[in-house]
Amino acid sequence: MLIVHKYGGTSVGSLERIESVASRVAKAKKEGNDLVVVVSAMSGETNKLIGFAEHFSDSPAKREMDMLLSSGERVTAALLSIALQGMGIDSIAMTGRQAGIKTDNAHTYARIDSINPEAMQSEIAQGKVVIVAGFQGINENGAVTTLGRGGSDLSAVAIAGALKADACEIYSDVDGIYTTDPRIEPKAKKMDFISYDEMLELASLGAKVLQNRSVELAKKLKVKMVAKSSFSDAEGTVIGEESKDMEAVLVSGIALDRNQARVTIREVADRPGIAAEIFTELAEEQINVDMIIQNASTDGTTNLGFTVPQNEINRAKAVIEAFDHDIGSMDFDDSVCKVSVVGVGMKSHSGVAATAFTALAKENINIEMISTSEIKVSMVVAEKYAELAVRTLHNIYELDA
Amino acid sequence: MLIVHKYGGTSVGSLERIESVASRVAKAKKEGNDLVVVVSAMSGETNKLIGFAEHFSDSPAKREMDMLLSSGERVTAALLSIALQGMGIDSIAMTGRQAGIKTDNAHTYARIDSINPEAMQSEIAQGKVVIVAGFQGINENGAVTTLGRGGSDLSAVAIAGALKADACEIYSDVDGIYTTDPRIEPKAKKMDFISYDEMLELASLGAKVLQNRSVELAKKLKVKMVAKSSFSDAEGTVIGEESKDMEAVLVSGIALDRNQARVTIREVADRPGIAAEIFTELAEEQINVDMIIQNASTDGTTNLGFTVPQNEINRAKAVIEAFDHDIGSMDFDDSVCKVSVVGVGMKSHSGVAATAFTALAKENINIEMISTSEIKVSMVVAEKYAELAVRTLHNIYELDA
Repeated sequence: MLIVHKYGGTSVGSLERIESVASRVAKAKKEGNDLVVVVSAMSGETNKLIGFAEHFSDSPAKREMDMLLSSGERVTAALLSIALQGMGIDSIAMTGRQAGIKTDNAHTYARIDSINPEAMQSEIAQGKVVIVAGFQGINENGAVTTLGRGGSDLSAVAIAGALKADACEIYSDVDGIYTTDPRIEPKAKKMDFISYDEMLELASLGAKVLQNRSVELAKKLKVKMVAKSSFSDAEGTVIGEESKDMEAVLVSGIALDRNQARVTIREVADRPGIAAEIFTELAEEQINVDMIIQNASTDGTTNLGFTVPQNEINRAKAVIEAFDHDIGSMDFDDSVCKVSVVGVGMKSHSGVAATAFTALAKENINIEMISTSEIKVSMVVAEKYAELAVRTLHNIYELDA
Repeated sequence: MLIVHKYGGTSVGSLERIESVASRVAKAKKEGNDLVVVVSAMSGETNKLIGFAEHFSDSPAKREMDMLLSSGERVTAALLSIALQGMGIDSIAMTGRQAGIKTDNAHTYARIDSINPEAMQSEIAQGKVVIVAGFQGINENGAVTTLGRGGSDLSAVAIAGALKADACEIYSDVDGIYTTDPRIEPKAKKMDFISYDEMLELASLGAKVLQNRSVELAKKLKVKMVAKSSFSDAEGTVIGEESKDMEAVLVSGIALDRNQARVTIREVADRPGIAAEIFTELAEEQINVDMIIQNASTDGTTNLGFTVPQNEINRAKAVIEAFDHDIGSMDFDDSVCKVSVVGVGMKSHSGVAATAFTALAKENINIEMISTSEIKVSMVVAEKYAELAVRTLHNIYELDA
């Protein structure tokens, strides 16, 4: 088997941790696998370097930031290779450039354009474990670029795709994806499997485990991801293609997003273009709108509701209050949260939403907004009910079974 | 003027120091100069990374060490560029690769094969200050190589040569080259000028200021070096070609090398090949022999003396004691030092050596070994006389005048 491992900052956060990772890699190699290992910077390094840059400038040039920040992953890659060699495992450390990773020119949030896997393949053919500095590549001018926060996950998935690897194992300090946040519902269970689409909808559950862009890329390239812990030998969670030959699980998990604020605009003139005007102005202020709800018109006006991140509510408020025509009263609430029920089984089963509404109603939790997709039902409720809502939904769908 | 600046680890050892370097560079730029700035890693960084590597292996692979160690200079280059941009100076940071520095394959002590200055020239033409990560290049396989300790000096001189720069200013925490070590002789004077050849012979005086290989390269490429302090505005010392049109200074300085041990072998058979055998065996054990003295034969045998670094005396002893033919008694002394009088004027003046011998004799300092070159007289004396010998010689040649 050809397997790509990826170790995040906490997993390589000290010399002892790097040694432990080296042992894990050595074991997998001795079991007969070919291995490519993608590493992040030691935890804290990237933030330290950002702090250094901010000492000199509020808006340091992104090209220089990339040269600065890409150094941390190189250090880890070289150290892990040295550690492996010290254990008698033949290995070679590569920068993003040496691993053949070409990106576009968008410094600090570059996209991978292509990977030429020949250099990696040649080293693998010689029996070496290939260690790649994650999070980085070079652009067409030969300048170093980085892929944005969590970019090492993206490196790992892209490399696994280019090498047609059998799996891409993402190691962190969490041992998999849970049916909900175990700090809220202790009965939360680790899933053995989850589909790419469910994982994307459950982003808030996996945010600390898997970068969303990497899941999207894995879906596109059909790379089998496995979320595992580098601190234990527990089986992880496989993220892969929805199985065709078995009945899909109705509900996979309950996600919670606390970082939500609600805006409601009443008496919006019910004519084409008003919503477009409002959301264009919000976009120009770079306010990230999440859910958008508009009710059908009754008396020639309609109500428009949407959510934004809590730290953007004041800017959103300024935009809406300056909007001087065709709207009536408005209402802002930054003490709401979004609870979501996710499952591919919803596609073919009705009643999932109704079950959720009924269960919350029984607990006297008022649902302020509702939004649904093929595999998700999201509900905005008062933030004080966040934990209760999560536990209630986790229970009603028997996710602890 | 096109000037190359080089700042060592102490000069960029903190964010405040980097800011101070940026101010100095900005000032030189505003005075109308074109500038390339070569930087070392922040002081302590390289040793920290070496310590990390040694945690995993007693003999880490040199290729991986180069990837590891080259990261420090990249961080400094990026930070200095960000600092300059923050001051409104247009600048660009480059790795060794981006600056066009190609080396041979000797990882950790690579030699520069060539520099393609086009990328640097193009940025200079656009009015930018070019910041280059020192100490590094890439080899023909695209792997990162480093140039050995003090390699940033070498980068700076090589770049100055490739760009035909008007000067290569080497900044450190010392403000120039002194006639001798001021800690030994407080009357030591800073020189305005010293020739390449004298500088090479005075290596022990300049070791903390200029890397020897860089002086050799500067001589070859006719690069004018200037040793200056980054902590003051004092004029530095120019290292350049010996002036043709003025009488050479008789004696420029007094160097001291404390790291010397003496080996004497008596009754060495006076036949061809014996010395070759002895020094071949020492070379095979990688023992660095410095001075070698052999007296003319009298009774069919001769005495052979040489010096080695003090920490290599035990290995030298083992080699000589195992040498089982054609030699008589032997004597080892690790409490000696080497005092050298250096000056290009010696070439054309006799009597310099005699003056030295007489002065030391007056102080009852016994000279154990003597070796001379065109521009140097070196004497091995007991280590306890080191300071007295230096002060005596500094005084007799009126170097404080």
